[in-house]
Amino acid sequence: MSDGDASTRRPLRTDLTPIVDAVAAADADAFVAVGDRFDADLRYLTRFAGPDRAYALAVVPGDDDATARAVCCAPSLFRAQAEREFVASAHDRDDGDGDGEFHDGVAREVRTERAGDHAGERAAAAVRDLLGGEERGGDEDSDGEGDRDGLDDGDPTILVPPSIPHDAAVYLERAGNGLASTDAVTTARARKTDAEIDRLRRVQRAAVAGMARAETVLAASEVGGDERERPTLRWEGAPLTTERLRRAVNATLAARGVRDASDTAIGVGPSAADRHDAGDDPIRPGETVLVDVSPRGPDGYRGDLTRTFVVDGDGGWERRAYLAVESARAVALGEIKPGVPAKTVHGEAVAELAAYGFDPNAEEGEAGFIRGAGHGVGVSLHESPSLSSGTELRPGHVIAVEPGVSDPSAGEVRLGDLVVVTEDGSEVLAEYPFGIAPTARE
Amino acid sequence: MSDGDASTRRPLRTDLTPIVDAVAAADADAFVAVGDRFDADLRYLTRFAGPDRAYALAVVPGDDDATARAVCCAPSLFRAQAEREFVASAHDRDDGDGDGEFHDGVAREVRTERAGDHAGERAAAAVRDLLGGEERGGDEDSDGEGDRDGLDDGDPTILVPPSIPHDAAVYLERAGNGLASTDAVTTARARKTDAEIDRLRRVQRAAVAGMARAETVLAASEVGGDERERPTLRWEGAPLTTERLRRAVNATLAARGVRDASDTAIGVGPSAADRHDAGDDPIRPGETVLVDVSPRGPDGYRGDLTRTFVVDGDGGWERRAYLAVESARAVALGEIKPGVPAKTVHGEAVAELAAYGFDPNAEEGEAGFIRGAGHGVGVSLHESPSLSSGTELRPGHVIAVEPGVSDPSAGEVRLGDLVVVTEDGSEVLAEYPFGIAPTARE
Repeated sequence: MSDGDASTRRPLRTDLTPIVDAVAAADADAFVAVGDRFDADLRYLTRFAGPDRAYALAVVPGDDDATARAVCCAPSLFRAQAEREFVASAHDRDDGDGDGEFHDGVAREVRTERAGDHAGERAAAAVRDLLGGEERGGDEDSDGEGDRDGLDDGDPTILVPPSIPHDAAVYLERAGNGLASTDAVTTARARKTDAEIDRLRRVQRAAVAGMARAETVLAASEVGGDERERPTLRWEGAPLTTERLRRAVNATLAARGVRDASDTAIGVGPSAADRHDAGDDPIRPGETVLVDVSPRGPDGYRGDLTRTFVVDGDGGWERRAYLAVESARAVALGEIKPGVPAKTVHGEAVAELAAYGFDPNAEEGEAGFIRGAGHGVGVSLHESPSLSSGTELRPGHVIAVEPGVSDPSAGEVRLGDLVVVTEDGSEVLAEYPFGIAPTARE
Repeated sequence: MSDGDASTRRPLRTDLTPIVDAVAAADADAFVAVGDRFDADLRYLTRFAGPDRAYALAVVPGDDDATARAVCCAPSLFRAQAEREFVASAHDRDDGDGDGEFHDGVAREVRTERAGDHAGERAAAAVRDLLGGEERGGDEDSDGEGDRDGLDDGDPTILVPPSIPHDAAVYLERAGNGLASTDAVTTARARKTDAEIDRLRRVQRAAVAGMARAETVLAASEVGGDERERPTLRWEGAPLTTERLRRAVNATLAARGVRDASDTAIGVGPSAADRHDAGDDPIRPGETVLVDVSPRGPDGYRGDLTRTFVVDGDGGWERRAYLAVESARAVALGEIKPGVPAKTVHGEAVAELAAYGFDPNAEEGEAGFIRGAGHGVGVSLHESPSLSSGTELRPGHVIAVEPGVSDPSAGEVRLGDLVVVTEDGSEVLAEYPFGIAPTARE
């Protein structure tokens, strides 16, 4: 991202100890994850922004005589990148000579042999090798099919994420392993390190710049008189549409180093309730314009910032809704501290909205429907903890707090910020001002 | 994208007949796919740009008395979007009243009941219902756990993509189904319809605009004298780096409607060989600058355009390489026509590079290493047909033809274009000029 110098950044690296501990706690023998670069678990575990075909990670705990080991089975064309991102970045001393100690005590290596085989087969071979079930030979063929018989004395148990690709799971099973699923990765991902919070803050600052662009465009727009029946906004000589506004936001994000802005959502009026819509609608005066900027930063972490504007509003439903949502947001932020069940935050926000006259029992599509108050954010836009869960908040949880209300006949108002749970409360990662009437911010 | 009017576009919709046929050919009972919005198969099959949690598609063939049916099990908040993208877009008459005939004869519907359950469970329930194993009741609970006993008369067989999430596969199996994997989706995806080619052409035109931006920035750069030892390029008052150039390209892509530019890769000099690097290196005169623009368009289709430039070059290795690669590209394009094995295209390109003195047997990291000549492109950046496979080319295959050579001591030269296989040859989807010395193109 544009602020901060790479040389002063905390290194982004994952502590694999919780995975090692989960294997030990389950009395299992290894952990394997398989996926492509869109797999958030694998991205988190390896820090390797891998290929768009499957690769694998195998982790085996150590014992008194050996340290725990982790092997990334990568395509051969990606060897240098995997060495850099998975191995070198995990060294305590990044002196590049490869003999640094690993920060979490888990020794990492990249293997590219048998690169043409399925990642599940390669992971099975790596586990067999790490467990010492077969002496590892000097050439690439020594891990071939014939080795399978070597493992019959007690089937190893491998922990896997629940959604590991089925073909990879079948390869692991055919190689003589039993599988058990683990939520250790989900749990580990939920609590962010200082380096992760740094990345989340950076991408959220880009989201702030994108939001400022959107608000500035709205502030600069004028009510057009061309259409006889329903006026629309005009900007730079043409009708302002959700697609034009999205492009303006995304160009700002790109200039700040964001490479993926797929989740920039602009919704107008009643259609704002369908917040996943990526259509091209005219933006009209008096309608709610919901701007949800959720970029993905270069390290894979996500921002999530939401504001709602009305150009030339009449101070009706949307102003009442804005006051209620702003108040619900304040109440929600006030609830956040370690030890509080996540759903309490949602519950208190809903209670505040209800105090403003919005029906807490309204269904989606009914007047006053209240949305979920938020969700965890990290390498996925939606991850643990959910604010509808009973999970106790803990320091390092990062949450998009985004209460909102919608009404099919009026529109939707939502206000969302990214906050980190601290030792004694919470901190907003990047502030953005409030106000339903747009103001030039650039 | 910016060119063309939405109202004149061909509707983007998937013919599910090959899936129905694959079920029949395998003597199976149904097809199920499960994944989130990053799952390219599911995106292709449903045209639903779904949520980042798992959803499902179930397809059951019809018989003499019934049409084939397809059910999308979506989260309830996405109902309207799924109805629009999965159901309405597949109507022959898009009159919005829901009674249109489906273009491929497969009746589509969205189900949101049991939205809290795992997508695998929901798909199992949908299959059971479609197969008539259980009378479907009027309320949401009728598909509950107790139904499982209703299916014991002959276990249904369900075809699944090989990489379906393992937990989903386990849910399907526990519900009494046998699973078999199918490559029907991969095969269907490889041959593009006119509407898909239209989307590929649009996003490739955005890639052309991004490339023009990169070339123009390079043409406007000057050799800086600030650094005593090695000069760098300077642009708009600051050193030009790969990150600055990438941001300039991506801002242009965003302004053209691209939302995901994660795969814009800029590599300089020897590091260009590591084309997946997303670092921030100075760009120097005399070095190869490889620009690979592979945006993802709003409908999910990918562009892929590659050019190589040298600012202030001395006409050495890189000029010889450029001539060789340009010639190899011409030879490759000349080979492409229906009936030709894909690997022939690669083989002829390699032979041409060898005729220019580049070693066809060089390994990666050695002087003159020759890269694969290309790959299929669609909703994934790399999909069938691979140019290293024996697959026969057929009309509608879309391929990134991108021969290149690299040398660790000199750099990398690659030239890539997106072409569609036509009835009697091939057509470049969007032309971009050639030339190793950058020219202002904007």
